[in-house]
Amino acid sequence: MTHPLYNASVPVFKQMLGGLDAILAKAEAHATEKKIEPDALLQARLFPDMFTFVRQVQIACDFAKSVPARLAGIDVPSYEDTERTFAELHARIAKTLAFVDGIDAAKFTGSDQREIVLRPGTPKEKRFDGQAYLLGYGLPHFFFHVTTAYALLRHNGVEIGKNDYMGA
Amino acid sequence: MTHPLYNASVPVFKQMLGGLDAILAKAEAHATEKKIEPDALLQARLFPDMFTFVRQVQIACDFAKSVPARLAGIDVPSYEDTERTFAELHARIAKTLAFVDGIDAAKFTGSDQREIVLRPGTPKEKRFDGQAYLLGYGLPHFFFHVTTAYALLRHNGVEIGKNDYMGA
Repeated sequence: MTHPLYNASVPVFKQMLGGLDAILAKAEAHATEKKIEPDALLQARLFPDMFTFVRQVQIACDFAKSVPARLAGIDVPSYEDTERTFAELHARIAKTLAFVDGIDAAKFTGSDQREIVLRPGTPKEKRFDGQAYLLGYGLPHFFFHVTTAYALLRHNGVEIGKNDYMGA
Repeated sequence: MTHPLYNASVPVFKQMLGGLDAILAKAEAHATEKKIEPDALLQARLFPDMFTFVRQVQIACDFAKSVPARLAGIDVPSYEDTERTFAELHARIAKTLAFVDGIDAAKFTGSDQREIVLRPGTPKEKRFDGQAYLLGYGLPHFFFHVTTAYALLRHNGVEIGKNDYMGA
């Protein structure tokens, strides 16, 4: 039997990254069809001090890789934030998916009690046990960025629906 | 020890409903301070065929009450969708929180295997076991509406931050 925190993380991140990739594909097709400059979507924001679509996708990937990695007690891979095109964002999602998919479920043994320390030694240091880290922190942050990416595309007229978001 | 699906539902919904209530309070204060017609926020949409802010809050509450109720095998309370003011939305969140808080954790025993049937007997019928229902369906839908409510307010200039959303 897999650990409950494996079940609540790896399959969830995989499903939603699939959805994120699907809305990205529809955004790209929309831009091509309507002859829209890709950056009109990629660099879109819902408000001037919010992150761009590109950044929302990057951060969603960051939570998707770092949360299960920390629960499993393995190193979080570091990605440079250099993506500027639809193709590069697809690639980032693909490498995130491959990483998440490759995490050994057995490493989640004891993860609910594992101490997770974010930004250690800084004034913003945060400590959690694994369960609180995933359920009260990691998932809410991850869904925030996936949904905001979706909302940005919808706001800009890309024809996507909740089924796309759901990655079903 | 509480059931893993209790841990992944009741405390998560409570935390995020707290956040939803907090951003609602800030939206109301913003409208008062800037002399904004409340409906400019309450009836705002990110795109014409998306739901209004009021509807996003209603639906978030619907997932927050129905998902843990179905997992616990108890009746889902029915709420009429009549809210038209900030005060009425606060009240809806409050009654949802009270309901969720009152669910007996012991009723989650066996919930991972419990069969959940949505829209039974209709062409849109969906069947899940409890685990798939919560993790692959209920949480993604819930977070979608909470985040969209947040995005709507941010897009309209309400000064809220991710800490508000997180309900911390």
